[in-house]
Amino acid sequence: MDYRFDVISAAEHDRLEALYEPFAQAMRELVDAGVRTEVDPQTIAEATAAVEAITASLRREQRDGPHAMVHADTRRPVVWANPVVGLRNALAPPLVIEHTDDGRCFSEFTLGAAYEGPLGWVHGGICALVLDHILGEVASGALHEPRYTGTITCRYRRGTPLGALRAEAYVDRTEGIKTFARGHISDGEGITVEAEGVFITPAWARDAG
Amino acid sequence: MDYRFDVISAAEHDRLEALYEPFAQAMRELVDAGVRTEVDPQTIAEATAAVEAITASLRREQRDGPHAMVHADTRRPVVWANPVVGLRNALAPPLVIEHTDDGRCFSEFTLGAAYEGPLGWVHGGICALVLDHILGEVASGALHEPRYTGTITCRYRRGTPLGALRAEAYVDRTEGIKTFARGHISDGEGITVEAEGVFITPAWARDAG
Repeated sequence: MDYRFDVISAAEHDRLEALYEPFAQAMRELVDAGVRTEVDPQTIAEATAAVEAITASLRREQRDGPHAMVHADTRRPVVWANPVVGLRNALAPPLVIEHTDDGRCFSEFTLGAAYEGPLGWVHGGICALVLDHILGEVASGALHEPRYTGTITCRYRRGTPLGALRAEAYVDRTEGIKTFARGHISDGEGITVEAEGVFITPAWARDAG
Repeated sequence: MDYRFDVISAAEHDRLEALYEPFAQAMRELVDAGVRTEVDPQTIAEATAAVEAITASLRREQRDGPHAMVHADTRRPVVWANPVVGLRNALAPPLVIEHTDDGRCFSEFTLGAAYEGPLGWVHGGICALVLDHILGEVASGALHEPRYTGTITCRYRRGTPLGALRAEAYVDRTEGIKTFARGHISDGEGITVEAEGVFITPAWARDAG
C-alpha cells in the first residue's frame, strides 16, 4: 500500500484546520438534512446534481492510499480522517476528546438524526463506535503509544437518547502487552452504556517500550 | 417527542427509493472526497459555500422528530435513516442485508477512506457498529420483532482491511426474553472480528409474543 507520512508544523496545522473544519461541518449539516428533508423531488434531484459537481471538483486532486500526519510540536498523530474524532470526516460527530491530568479521557458531544437507530434513540452500534474509540484513546495514552482493540464488551443499561451526551474512559490496569480500559456514555440522568476493553500493543511497537 | 408514523404503499416506497438512493450515494461520494481531497484552498472554500446552499434548500421542509415508516405489503419497518443500512443516510455504507431461509443474515459491502482508523484498516468501532447492527437484525427476525442490544462483545482477531468485506450473523439460542446472536466480519482471507450479543425483547413488546 502507498503510505504517505508528513510531519506538519503548528502553523500549517492551524491553516489546514481553519480550511477543513468549516467544510466538514457543512458536510455534516448536509448529511443531517439529507435524512430529514421533505422537500419536493425536483429539489432533491437538483441537490443530487449539485453534490456530484462539488465531488468532481474535489476529486481533481486526492490521495489514493493512507496518509499519516504528525504534529511537529506535540508529536501526536493528526487523525483528521478518523470516523469518530476526524476534523475532516463528515461521519464523525466529531468528538473532541479532553485528557485530564490523572490520565482519564472525556468528551461532550451531540448526536442528531443521522445517528438514530430505534426511533428517538442513538443506534446501539454508534454507542459501541464511540466507546471503542475513547477506550482506545485512553489505553494508548492519547495516541502516543499504538494499541489496537483486542476485545470490547458494551453493556446497554438503557436507551441512549439523541441529543447532548458525554463519554468518558480510564485505564483500569495494565498487564504486559494488555491494557484494560473502562468507560461509559451518559446523558443528563446518568450512565446509559458501559464498556470494558482489552487493548494490545502491536508486535512492531513492543521493542519501543 | 413528536413521532410520525406512516404506512407506505409499495409504489410509494419504490418512488421514494428511486429519488433518495442516488442522492444519498452522491453524499457518500462527497464525504469520501472530503477526507481525501488535496485541492487548493479556494476550491475548498467554494465547495463549503456550495454545500451550505444545498443544505439550506433541503432544510426548507424537514422533519423535526423521529419518523417511522412501515411497508404496506411486507409490514417491515423502512429504516432509511439508519446509520448502517439506511438508504438515505450518507453515514451508512450502506449494508444491504440478505436473509437466508435458515434464519441467518449476511451482507457484502465495501468500506472506504471515511471508515479508516489505523492507517489502511477499518476503525475497530466501525466493525462494532456493523456487528451490532447485523446481530440485532438477525436477533429481531429481520426487524419483525423489536429487540434491543443488552450486551455485545467483539473479539478482534486481526486488522480488518479497507475494501470488500462480508458480515454474517445467526441466532445461537433463545432463553425467555433473551436472544443470543453470534456473527463475524471477514475479508478474502477469513474472519477478522467475531461478536456475540444478547438482545432483549423490550417490556412493551413482551405481551405480543
